[in-house]
Amino acid sequence: MSLHDQLCQLETPVLLLDENRMNRNIARMQKRMDQLGVAFRPHAKTSKCPAVVQRQIAAGARGITVSTLKEAERFHAAGVNDILYAVAIIPSKFEHALRLLRAGLQLTLLVESEAAASQLAQFGIDHGQRFEVLIEVDTDGHRSGIEPEAQRLIEVAKSLRVVSGCGAHLRGVLTHAGSSYSLNTPQALAAMAEQERAGCVRAAQRLRDAGHECAVVSVGSTPTALSATRLDGVTEVRAGVYVFFDLVMSEVGICSQDDIALSVLCTVIGHRQDAGWIITDGGWMSMSRDRGTQKQAHDYGYGLVCNIDGRPVPGVVFNDANQEHGVLAWTGDASVDLEKRFPVGSQFRIVPNHACATGAQHPAYQVLPADGQSLARWDRFSGW
Amino acid sequence: MSLHDQLCQLETPVLLLDENRMNRNIARMQKRMDQLGVAFRPHAKTSKCPAVVQRQIAAGARGITVSTLKEAERFHAAGVNDILYAVAIIPSKFEHALRLLRAGLQLTLLVESEAAASQLAQFGIDHGQRFEVLIEVDTDGHRSGIEPEAQRLIEVAKSLRVVSGCGAHLRGVLTHAGSSYSLNTPQALAAMAEQERAGCVRAAQRLRDAGHECAVVSVGSTPTALSATRLDGVTEVRAGVYVFFDLVMSEVGICSQDDIALSVLCTVIGHRQDAGWIITDGGWMSMSRDRGTQKQAHDYGYGLVCNIDGRPVPGVVFNDANQEHGVLAWTGDASVDLEKRFPVGSQFRIVPNHACATGAQHPAYQVLPADGQSLARWDRFSGW
Repeated sequence: MSLHDQLCQLETPVLLLDENRMNRNIARMQKRMDQLGVAFRPHAKTSKCPAVVQRQIAAGARGITVSTLKEAERFHAAGVNDILYAVAIIPSKFEHALRLLRAGLQLTLLVESEAAASQLAQFGIDHGQRFEVLIEVDTDGHRSGIEPEAQRLIEVAKSLRVVSGCGAHLRGVLTHAGSSYSLNTPQALAAMAEQERAGCVRAAQRLRDAGHECAVVSVGSTPTALSATRLDGVTEVRAGVYVFFDLVMSEVGICSQDDIALSVLCTVIGHRQDAGWIITDGGWMSMSRDRGTQKQAHDYGYGLVCNIDGRPVPGVVFNDANQEHGVLAWTGDASVDLEKRFPVGSQFRIVPNHACATGAQHPAYQVLPADGQSLARWDRFSGW
Repeated sequence: MSLHDQLCQLETPVLLLDENRMNRNIARMQKRMDQLGVAFRPHAKTSKCPAVVQRQIAAGARGITVSTLKEAERFHAAGVNDILYAVAIIPSKFEHALRLLRAGLQLTLLVESEAAASQLAQFGIDHGQRFEVLIEVDTDGHRSGIEPEAQRLIEVAKSLRVVSGCGAHLRGVLTHAGSSYSLNTPQALAAMAEQERAGCVRAAQRLRDAGHECAVVSVGSTPTALSATRLDGVTEVRAGVYVFFDLVMSEVGICSQDDIALSVLCTVIGHRQDAGWIITDGGWMSMSRDRGTQKQAHDYGYGLVCNIDGRPVPGVVFNDANQEHGVLAWTGDASVDLEKRFPVGSQFRIVPNHACATGAQHPAYQVLPADGQSLARWDRFSGW
């Protein structure tokens, strides 16, 4: 059966993954990192899928980044041995981190406060364990972390201590220039990448000047990773959404719509000819409520409406959604008979605003395989 | 260990369910339906949890409503035998519905087009199966369905046919006045409830006048179910979110904040004193991206910030979120030391905008039990 026929038989909504596009995205980023001479540590929060991560590692990634300890646990079980948990650790998660280390995982943790740093060190001493730790640095004011010039940076480093080989050991610094998501010119993106690099390198230098070891200088976001022109002083780069890309990234300007590897297949279930609406079974539960393009130059509503072959359908926009209903609006000639043009049972593929959010609504990817033969199912996980 | 201490030890984020509040919400709705003299068929898409649905049935519900065939399958496996799938059926789902019927489930389907109605009838005839079907009626123009006065209503009914006991049999009509979610006065809500009732009863009457049986007249949404003053001609009411309620419903005016049974427990992981931010591990992945109160009188951002005992925390608002980071803003006196007031490791409970959306982000409820003793875990499912 052709791939097209296999798609037509799927019970919708389902999450589709175009393996060719994903492979291209993986190769593009890895090649860039290789050229810039840094290690690449992809963020697995985007895919939450061992089959995807295995391909990133096969392409050259050295370790991965995660956003939850569940991700660390699942990816370790799938054979990944070098994992950075890139959300500041807190005491209620120390036991979980300890279990993962004792299970053999090379786990690196993140701190951004003296409180967490000193408690983690004490916990390590009490439990005969050495934790490897990065300090979170704030290089763009968008979220958490310590500013490179802040006195607190040195104080947090001092709170990390190792006694008789146990405690919390400073490995380096980490930053994430998340505000790059709101930019959309190559100049602004390159400037933000340099700001991210320079700030993180400066923080590392201050720590070294204060007598601390600081082997790791970890930076990254998908937009800055693809916009940096030099990475002097950086040892590794992290990026997540590049593996699939999405409409937000295409509006930022670092990919084309043809690079986006994810879409949600849905089916027409009815029409409201008077209102100009086509109703589908792909509501917000399948797309997520993420309206990431709302503040960008082009607001795609709940996603870009494409046909089953992945080409945009002129005149149809995805303006509104209920839990299991998509409400697509026909913006073309009002005399068009919508039931005839888009019959009940016909299908659309919706390209998402935000790959991380849309992916999280689904238990698995239906993979359009690189070899063009049969659909494959790759499971993904969710929760904490 | 006290419940408070049990909460403090949870690895966050986790979804909390206050069983007392849920029980009160269930009892309130059931009592109202009993007084109005109609059957009540709760919508299980809100909880996706057999333990919740069992309590609704024990309180008097007759059957349930679902939004996916996976919900039908899971709830049937959990012992529910009477299920209405309230999204218009399409040919690619006929086989799945057939399997459920053959497994013994009393499943009712929905149609809103001649195309689906005639294909379902033919499928039933071809497979020796009789499908029970409702026609979707549009009483408020908010989504799908056929207007009560439309000629198409009769044509769809004619497309449903039974030959030698097999095919598709018209059982009645169904409507959902979803536009009630945008109202906020008792008068407007009562008027919408009456519009919903009158429109659906009128559609049933037209079908009966045309010679069709129409035993079921099914209406409902949480706001209209709690606002209707009479339900003459209606046989059953459906409502979903009432079981937990949420901030959107409290802004609609049909519950108080003290009725809301769901919250997300999260933990402080850091601060940005200069920006006035408290950073938590409860980001949009745990809250969902639903910003349902954005268009209402009070915009709660990503949710209402409460302390671990469920009481609102003055001066803290949940304005921004990343995937696994909540960014809470302190709006009080700028001289307050945020690290001292809200130390790393302290917890918040965030009351959600939209219970259906927030619940869907979690694999289970941690239940604050009615007996006040030990936390319980109730699993919920997701996906299609």
